[in-house]
Amino acid sequence: MSVEDRLKELGIELPEAAAPAANYVPTVRTGNLLYVSGQVPQRDGVLVKGQCGNGMSVEDAAAAARLCGLSLIAQVKRAAGDLDAVRVVKLNGFVNATGDFGDHPAVINGASDLMVEVFGDKGRHARSAVGSSSLPFGVAVEVEGIFEIG
Amino acid sequence: MSVEDRLKELGIELPEAAAPAANYVPTVRTGNLLYVSGQVPQRDGVLVKGQCGNGMSVEDAAAAARLCGLSLIAQVKRAAGDLDAVRVVKLNGFVNATGDFGDHPAVINGASDLMVEVFGDKGRHARSAVGSSSLPFGVAVEVEGIFEIG
Amino acid sequence: MSVEDRLKELGIELPEAAAPAANYVPTVRTGNLLYVSGQVPQRDGVLVKGQCGNGMSVEDAAAAARLCGLSLIAQVKRAAGDLDAVRVVKLNGFVNATGDFGDHPAVINGASDLMVEVFGDKGRHARSAVGSSSLPFGVAVEVEGIFEIG
Repeated sequence: MSVEDRLKELGIELPEAAAPAANYVPTVRTGNLLYVSGQVPQRDGVLVKGQCGNGMSVEDAAAAARLCGLSLIAQVKRAAGDLDAVRVVKLNGFVNATGDFGDHPAVINGASDLMVEVFGDKGRHARSAVGSSSLPFGVAVEVEGIFEIG
Repeated sequence: MSVEDRLKELGIELPEAAAPAANYVPTVRTGNLLYVSGQVPQRDGVLVKGQCGNGMSVEDAAAAARLCGLSLIAQVKRAAGDLDAVRVVKLNGFVNATGDFGDHPAVINGASDLMVEVFGDKGRHARSAVGSSSLPFGVAVEVEGIFEIG
Repeated sequence: MSVEDRLKELGIELPEAAAPAANYVPTVRTGNLLYVSGQVPQRDGVLVKGQCGNGMSVEDAAAAARLCGLSLIAQVKRAAGDLDAVRVVKLNGFVNATGDFGDHPAVINGASDLMVEVFGDKGRHARSAVGSSSLPFGVAVEVEGIFEIG
């Protein structure tokens, strides 16, 4: 099954790939690697804000990480066209979190699980998950990625 | 116009590329990718310290990020020699910031804008900007980079 | 001397390479680059927890970073087999640290020094060291790496 068909079967609609915000761009390709800028969680154009350990639940933060993942895939699609030729290499997840929070892996699983749902075995990736004292605009999660293009 | 000529036109003088500090080195090249270690902001040999959300303004932090960018370019020049063969692939910017700070993108623009001033279209890069609870020696910003060499 | 012989001479026994924890995997190879997921410090199966600036000394945190480094090497060995064909390209070190901590480089030296002990000149790498407001399960350090193979 093609990745596009799998997206349909999963009922996943990719968001609009956000346009360049400044002198940086959403994606840069070098060789067969595509570097995707850090994506922040948006739902219907509204940023998902919050801090783990300070009122935001792990479940809500994981849902935000999934939204970051959807934006990553949308950027890859815009840059690469054909999602069937794509393999996920690396995700770096930054969780807006207080000093006593410890469930960063469960949060970033929101993005990791999405990659395997969408890309199957080619969605299994290396990863880091760490805490950030704060994130742009107060968002709960930021996830960046490196993808291989066939 | 060559990148060196553009640097002159912009009145930009690159700092001395800092020597290896320990068992890590400023740059490693693999294939045509050059990984540059995280650079901290220095002005005339003095570190720029401070924390956003705790007394340091966005403008001052962006100026510090620009200094990190200058050091990145100095390291690339030392490693690659010819700056005309260089393309900026990725920057990762870490902002020393408290929990309620949210202007990380504006801070890291200090480095991003410099790349486009210096390298033109080849300076447009993928990027992440996140908050760090603290940074080495109390500096305000740390920026690392990946560059492609022609 | 082979890397395996050097490990023996140094009296270093690699830990068990941790199995995949979720939909992410310990390593992904693309071309001749091996991306290794962020490793957390374990001693005899027990996580090393703590926060710099809040009770954990630089020495103890550097020892934890060395444990992360051992896990990185164990993952590389599992993925690549022959350690003699390995070169360390990049380490990213995240230190669980309060806002007034500034000795991140000394902490991450625990991992950097290990790489040069084990791999010699091929262990000299580019690096970043930053503070995190918190890390998974409250560990003191997390280190990820990029390695070149053969």
